Amino acid sequence: MAIPMARACSPLSRWLHVLVAVMLTAAGGCWGGKTRHFKWDVEYMFRSPDGEENLVMGINGQFPGPTIRARAGDTVHVELTNKLHTEGVVIHWHGIRQLGTPWADGTASISQCAIAPGETFLYRFKVDKAGTYFYHGHYGMQRSAGLYGSLIVEVEDGKREPFHYDGEFNLLLSDWWHKSVHEQEIGLSSLPFRWINEPETLLINGRGQYNCSLAAQYNKSAALSQCTLRGGEQWAPNVLKVLPNKTYRLRIASTTALASLNLAIGNHKMVVVEADGNYIQPFETNDIDIYSGESYSVIFTTNQNPSTNHWISIGVRGRRPQTPQALALLNYLPNSASKLPLSAPPPTPQWNDYAHSKSFTNKLKSLMGTPQPPTTHHRRIVLLNTQNRIDGYIKWAINNVSLSLPPTPYLGSIKHGLKAAFDQSPPPESFANGYNIMVPPVNPNTTTGNGVYEIEFNTTVDVILQNANALAANTSEIHPWHLHGHDFWVLGYGEGRFEEGDEKMFNLKNPPLRNTAVIFPYGWTALRFVADNPGVWAFHCHIEPHLHMGMGVVFAEGVHLVGDVPSEALACGLTGKRLASTGGR
Amino acid sequence: MAIPMARACSPLSRWLHVLVAVMLTAAGGCWGGKTRHFKWDVEYMFRSPDGEENLVMGINGQFPGPTIRARAGDTVHVELTNKLHTEGVVIHWHGIRQLGTPWADGTASISQCAIAPGETFLYRFKVDKAGTYFYHGHYGMQRSAGLYGSLIVEVEDGKREPFHYDGEFNLLLSDWWHKSVHEQEIGLSSLPFRWINEPETLLINGRGQYNCSLAAQYNKSAALSQCTLRGGEQWAPNVLKVLPNKTYRLRIASTTALASLNLAIGNHKMVVVEADGNYIQPFETNDIDIYSGESYSVIFTTNQNPSTNHWISIGVRGRRPQTPQALALLNYLPNSASKLPLSAPPPTPQWNDYAHSKSFTNKLKSLMGTPQPPTTHHRRIVLLNTQNRIDGYIKWAINNVSLSLPPTPYLGSIKHGLKAAFDQSPPPESFANGYNIMVPPVNPNTTTGNGVYEIEFNTTVDVILQNANALAANTSEIHPWHLHGHDFWVLGYGEGRFEEGDEKMFNLKNPPLRNTAVIFPYGWTALRFVADNPGVWAFHCHIEPHLHMGMGVVFAEGVHLVGDVPSEALACGLTGKRLASTGGR
Repeated sequence: MAIPMARACSPLSRWLHVLVAVMLTAAGGCWGGKTRHFKWDVEYMFRSPDGEENLVMGINGQFPGPTIRARAGDTVHVELTNKLHTEGVVIHWHGIRQLGTPWADGTASISQCAIAPGETFLYRFKVDKAGTYFYHGHYGMQRSAGLYGSLIVEVEDGKREPFHYDGEFNLLLSDWWHKSVHEQEIGLSSLPFRWINEPETLLINGRGQYNCSLAAQYNKSAALSQCTLRGGEQWAPNVLKVLPNKTYRLRIASTTALASLNLAIGNHKMVVVEADGNYIQPFETNDIDIYSGESYSVIFTTNQNPSTNHWISIGVRGRRPQTPQALALLNYLPNSASKLPLSAPPPTPQWNDYAHSKSFTNKLKSLMGTPQPPTTHHRRIVLLNTQNRIDGYIKWAINNVSLSLPPTPYLGSIKHGLKAAFDQSPPPESFANGYNIMVPPVNPNTTTGNGVYEIEFNTTVDVILQNANALAANTSEIHPWHLHGHDFWVLGYGEGRFEEGDEKMFNLKNPPLRNTAVIFPYGWTALRFVADNPGVWAFHCHIEPHLHMGMGVVFAEGVHLVGDVPSEALACGLTGKRLASTGGR
Repeated sequence: MAIPMARACSPLSRWLHVLVAVMLTAAGGCWGGKTRHFKWDVEYMFRSPDGEENLVMGINGQFPGPTIRARAGDTVHVELTNKLHTEGVVIHWHGIRQLGTPWADGTASISQCAIAPGETFLYRFKVDKAGTYFYHGHYGMQRSAGLYGSLIVEVEDGKREPFHYDGEFNLLLSDWWHKSVHEQEIGLSSLPFRWINEPETLLINGRGQYNCSLAAQYNKSAALSQCTLRGGEQWAPNVLKVLPNKTYRLRIASTTALASLNLAIGNHKMVVVEADGNYIQPFETNDIDIYSGESYSVIFTTNQNPSTNHWISIGVRGRRPQTPQALALLNYLPNSASKLPLSAPPPTPQWNDYAHSKSFTNKLKSLMGTPQPPTTHHRRIVLLNTQNRIDGYIKWAINNVSLSLPPTPYLGSIKHGLKAAFDQSPPPESFANGYNIMVPPVNPNTTTGNGVYEIEFNTTVDVILQNANALAANTSEIHPWHLHGHDFWVLGYGEGRFEEGDEKMFNLKNPPLRNTAVIFPYGWTALRFVADNPGVWAFHCHIEPHLHMGMGVVFAEGVHLVGDVPSEALACGLTGKRLASTGGR
């Protein structure tokens, strides 16, 4: 199913959408493309991602988990067995829209019950669109525990990408703490509040170097003992072996818990060609900003001094960094990988140089041929992002509601009309006119809740994400918001409070189509999407502790059109009780 | 329902038992006695049980959890809500036989599905017999995480204990590690194996002092800084305030993960009067050995020098101790609690002085009037305890089978005939004749399994627990075995391998009735019980890491007589699937 082109929803086009949705649901096993089978065990293991040993949540003994490679049109089957001892688990396929399979979205409390220890759940979904994706845990803060990996979808057999390259590399970026995720979680929900602090280490494909300048590796005389790596260590840096005068595609995705990142390749320009599984009008850049939940493809050419190697560096943006840069090596063959680059690692722009970030973000335009947005919307939801206190506990709230997920997954409770499963009053469409986003919030009415934005099927929705001042004066943070089940068009960014009339600034011509978009400090971001995917979908800040603190909302659309949900996905809470009393009838 | 007195099972007595079981099940809410209601939230919290801060699993903000006090004949309702973020939970009511309520035994994989995060489960059971009990987690190693508390059942209104006392104290003993339980669990199931090592601290009612001689508290000049306690700290020692020339009952229960303990009151004799909720022929002792899973009541009289306070000490037995004694203060009023006792804390007997342990154990005889065992048995199950390697992983095995619990609880899968839920071949009744218990095991056939000992309802079963040499030469450990759903008679202990004829040594006259009994190194222990409680019951070593490594078996008896099991207890695994397809019909 292509992105719907309908600008306005005529009754006919609505019916067509319904038909397509029903057909997709009914089609089941007879989708086109290959079926790719995976059998995965999720388990804890001892691992030293950055030289310090820790418990890491891995898959089949690997951290990060195995990379899935498929072609557009393929069906992916992941038979996931939970080998943890007492913890449930789910896996979210970030960027995959789950057309017709909303129960496979892998969001606990929303699309399914967590998979209990010892049990197996079959994720079955179509990867309909080529691009750079990833997957990760979506229960508690299990993503922070290391439950993630890459999902690469290549173009259909016989088709070609709209750009050329001779080889490709894939870098999955993350951040790492030595404190256990359980301690982090409990600290965030404790009184007094305990922040997780900045990460100890940044990881590239699960490898980083704690408390050690990586450069020292290549300069043994200056090395600290913990930095004399031979390359076989679990925390040895990634080496990208390239030939001179070739063109490479670098896939980059960020599944950080907290850090906004900037990536640069020393001495090399990059051309951005893909963002979140959608093609971008190519543009050149020295470095890219990448926020948690985002992915990019860039093209670079190995046209620099071939007698030396070069650094690839990532560093922290948007928060005062206390974490060293992570480095990988661009190794021009036939040089030895142990040959130290002549130039220092490329520096990361100043953490608070937001002009730099905005400049990069504003360069992102969709490639011609990308579906364009409907020109009007049916509904606008304005979401104010505030940091609040509730009974002394620090929370994030959206329009004064801090999301607290229910034990029964919405997909089942809405489908079966189980009204006791969650707050039946819908959350607010907007926030008070008089609210001053430039000062700390004064919100006596802030509350926790789990109401749902019910969206009429096939309507066009605008979301205005409105940033504001946090609890501390003169503080407003970056939040990358991620939508499940859809791509959205990023219509525009603005400073201060969104006002009527700002929509004149919207880019309706070639806005980038993405699944994650950032709000800048004290700014707003406007998104548009068509509610054409029957299911219940999370929309949330992709910063793991922020989501844990309530920074998200839930959209439900066309749930009556959702076909049979596997009973395993609903065998908990009130849907479990219902199954037990009705046998699913 | 009293302990059955039937010596032989006539058809009539069998029918009577069936009738009683059915009546108990049917009686539901109309039991006699009061109903005691509790609403509990299980959650992690930051706590310093021994002066070092750690995550602790607590209940309603308390660690140890709240003490339940009830009277014999009362019904206890615990509405348990799981406030953990990703972990399931259950609570086992240790020593409560769950007559008619086998689904309330609180053993994950056996009596119920683990309670998922956010969900509430109602434990409803009768406490039919006065005694000193406790409760604890029984999922993964959550007991080690601190999920435990006391359960005290007083005699029925108008009845009296067969001994006099002026006041009582309750001491719940445990051991504590600074390493997280998750790390402990993963280490035990890792290759190479990582042992949890000896505890950092012993706790009395959740309080201990790490790396600090408690005596220093009362001697400020000699104190280390971390030992200068004022009494308000979470790790401040327990003070038992007594009046001179009175008689006190001291209830003692051990829920240690590993440590066998010895308790003594400086300068005071004790008289043992209760073990595991059954009365004991009173005998005097200077100290008592207490193994994990056991409870005792002792009586002591404050007839010593009233101008000084006295130490109560506990120390490690049966393993080379690396953990300091824990101390509590017996504070003779009106002395100040800060007054240092004149005598040093009573020393713990040598860790390997097994003669001392056996001498104590052999003094335990049931008080006259205690139900006596049937004089013969219908079946004898001999259980060899060995430490083994399976594919390099270190395990404990019983008759060469290391227990690996299934995701579907047995109570449901047996009741509904779901044969795919666990190994249908029953585990061995005994072990090879030629097995030499004095040397490390040579067991190429050791395997993991989850078969069940199906026991004919109302028959009398003898269990011979046979200890043996562990993997290391000249090593045999103590294992306290705990039976769910029953008390058993401890018929006798012996050295070496149990042989035909050894049963002549059995004490059939006044064997102690207990729920936990130890096997000594290279020895055997003979138990007898009547399978008169319809349900599925764990029987296992109460050492938490040993159970985790497979040291247990499962007994099923009269499951066809079990009435309606709450569907919440079965909403997982294959019973969950069955509920989903049949609606419980």
